Amino acid sequence: MENLISKIKNSIALSAEAEVYIHSIAKERTVSRGDILIQQGQTVNKTFFVKHGSLRSFCIDQEGKEHTLQFAIKDWWISDFTAIYNHVPASLTVECIADSTVIEFNARELEEIYNRFPEFEPYQRKNLERHIVSLNKRILNQMQLTALARYQLFLEQYPDIEQSISNYHIASYLGMTQQSLSRVRAELAKI
Amino acid sequence: MENLISKIKNSIALSAEAEVYIHSIAKERTVSRGDILIQQGQTVNKTFFVKHGSLRSFCIDQEGKEHTLQFAIKDWWISDFTAIYNHVPASLTVECIADSTVIEFNARELEEIYNRFPEFEPYQRKNLERHIVSLNKRILNQMQLTALARYQLFLEQYPDIEQSISNYHIASYLGMTQQSLSRVRAELAKI
Repeated sequence: MENLISKIKNSIALSAEAEVYIHSIAKERTVSRGDILIQQGQTVNKTFFVKHGSLRSFCIDQEGKEHTLQFAIKDWWISDFTAIYNHVPASLTVECIADSTVIEFNARELEEIYNRFPEFEPYQRKNLERHIVSLNKRILNQMQLTALARYQLFLEQYPDIEQSISNYHIASYLGMTQQSLSRVRAELAKI
Repeated sequence: MENLISKIKNSIALSAEAEVYIHSIAKERTVSRGDILIQQGQTVNKTFFVKHGSLRSFCIDQEGKEHTLQFAIKDWWISDFTAIYNHVPASLTVECIADSTVIEFNARELEEIYNRFPEFEPYQRKNLERHIVSLNKRILNQMQLTALARYQLFLEQYPDIEQSISNYHIASYLGMTQQSLSRVRAELAKI
């Protein structure tokens, strides 16, 4: 919890009451590799802040192929935000891909923070703006960069994740086959 | 302006003072097809709300190829939000693709609204959440849908835009060549 609290304190003057509220709605959970925290098709009411470890969110298409939307490592949030924002069943599965500790929040209790402590509004607005920036970059990168450049960017963005996840996961995030990923790695080794 | 004001009033109780403030910072502009409102590489301090017409934002890669990030039609916002949020030069160009009328805002004056009228914070949080939902969908659709399914979704999302924009623009948004787009259209005509 300290990491989350200090992350917030870096941006806003957190009142003692707000800190008590956050502690009161936070549940620390240890989860194991392979555990499913959110299942595609089910109702979603939880959001997770990663204390340590790695998780990913992905969907499965009609041919059974997996597509990874996001990885989450230390200090990142993960959930199916589309399901939470739109009050629809999950279109994503959130899976633990290395033994992890997460702070679990009930999405409604977390949302209640804006009513109780409006000082969180500009903080969250900035968070959402940053999220939009990163999603826009991902869309443009997917369209304009070579497979090699996309893989290099991935290594910069997730510097320590590579040990804990499989080629299959990385390929499903970068939108390439595992064969292409192997070729890209071989290319990179020559540089 | 009436559209923008009524759009806001659908979501929040807009005070007379806030309405006066919005009018005071809004400038109506008519722009012609081909006009550039934001130029890649330049400083960005403007955001546009489309009263009518069509615009697009795009970037040009190292080989000179254009990639369209967004189209904006009636009642949509367009700018280079990454440049505004991160205070960096534009990585996008915003171009008018049909004669249009836009409401121009200075980004800092628009941002000032949250200090003056905090009731805009939850309204904007919801807007940003919806934007994140649509960007997530676009990323997953790009990875998992066929060219035909992506084109069909595009027609649903922008039902009236097709007359005013070229195949080149649509192909650059869907991440396909113009030849692929022609094939997809021929396929669709047979369904």
